[in-house]
Amino acid sequence: MTRLNSYHLPQDRWPGGSELARLEGPEARHLLGVLRARVGETVRLFDGFGRHGLFELVEASGKSQARLRLVSESTEPAPAHGVTLALGWNKSSRRDWLLEKGVELGALGILFWQAARSQGDMPHEAKETWLEKCVQAAKQCQTAWLPSLGTVPGGVEGLVRIAGDFDGCYVLYEGARQDALLDPKRLAAGRSLVVLGPEGGIEEREAARLAEAGFGLLSLGPQPLRWETAALSCLALTHHALLAP
Amino acid sequence: MTRLNSYHLPQDRWPGGSELARLEGPEARHLLGVLRARVGETVRLFDGFGRHGLFELVEASGKSQARLRLVSESTEPAPAHGVTLALGWNKSSRRDWLLEKGVELGALGILFWQAARSQGDMPHEAKETWLEKCVQAAKQCQTAWLPSLGTVPGGVEGLVRIAGDFDGCYVLYEGARQDALLDPKRLAAGRSLVVLGPEGGIEEREAARLAEAGFGLLSLGPQPLRWETAALSCLALTHHALLAP
Repeated sequence: MTRLNSYHLPQDRWPGGSELARLEGPEARHLLGVLRARVGETVRLFDGFGRHGLFELVEASGKSQARLRLVSESTEPAPAHGVTLALGWNKSSRRDWLLEKGVELGALGILFWQAARSQGDMPHEAKETWLEKCVQAAKQCQTAWLPSLGTVPGGVEGLVRIAGDFDGCYVLYEGARQDALLDPKRLAAGRSLVVLGPEGGIEEREAARLAEAGFGLLSLGPQPLRWETAALSCLALTHHALLAP
Repeated sequence: MTRLNSYHLPQDRWPGGSELARLEGPEARHLLGVLRARVGETVRLFDGFGRHGLFELVEASGKSQARLRLVSESTEPAPAHGVTLALGWNKSSRRDWLLEKGVELGALGILFWQAARSQGDMPHEAKETWLEKCVQAAKQCQTAWLPSLGTVPGGVEGLVRIAGDFDGCYVLYEGARQDALLDPKRLAAGRSLVVLGPEGGIEEREAARLAEAGFGLLSLGPQPLRWETAALSCLALTHHALLAP
């Protein structure tokens, strides 16, 4: 199956009316420099907020700027079901691939929070490179929605403050009762927030505070999983539950 | 929760009777050189075939050889349920972490096969480094069983030849009917073989040959997943199904 190559055009640069779209930076260099697209070719652009369309390349300036004419566009509704992960901040080399897998498996959001056992200081806001990683993954799997990215300040209290934005809030916790096994159908029933600790785990008092605030403590089984394995399992289980009848 | 450090002692070097165990190479260097264990300390050794035990360090020769006395040992039965993955050979940088996740998520085996779209030539047998990767992962998650590792020669015909070793055989295939969604409970019902293509996918004729031989063609949903994401989803779903009541 041949697929059109996809390029990310940020929401605020999507063309209105008969305007031409202007693609710049790495996306334009990929289109013109790497794939050597020619005037007249059709490509797919997406904004990461559900909008995507077919465009015809009408002008190329060097290898760094392309102008394209909209041929047809469509908009996918925002997903109403799925998981937003809130991951304990880590100096992990595995953050990038977790972002990539989040896109592939349809995470609604990927947030970070500063846990008691976090190593290093979490940045104040989502880094540009995180978005870039997600864009690359979205191009590969042709999804129209990117997960929302962000950092949640204020430790567990910050998590409690955003709880109202979700239909259900949960914590993956090694100390959870073994019979409180994560139920994918429940996570997939609405917009769910799932909190994970950093490497080294969430502290008991952090889990207790979240439980007090109504977060359900969930287990992924008796064997300890690495933080990224737990995060990925949660995404894979929810992704599957959203598809299962 | 404090956990004892674990070290891998291959099956054929497990001590009989009142013999002392001898730990050498990287495992000994980690014990003596990195963690600076002292005579009298207790550590956990495992053979990757279900046997593990507590040992007391009785002698250290430099930083590369340790002799240990068995204090107590136990044996976990071989898992009767789970998934063996047969992965299309790839030049992937992600092989290592798939091995790691296979251990964490309880894969019974990880095999490779040479598919039509494989890039590069598969080695004739499992590489030593694959086992090392699995050992490292097993130390982390304290599992007693390592997945069996191997390569299956002969393309799809080779896969057909080993099918009799399993209770059920399946292929994750992009071209599978969308209603043939992978059923984790079914994979977890016995010893299952799950075939995946390489990056780029399994060819239609390969899938057709396997279907003809009785392999079930399964889908993971309409969206294309990278090969390692598909493999990992399969492992995470089976891992969860084995725990769910």
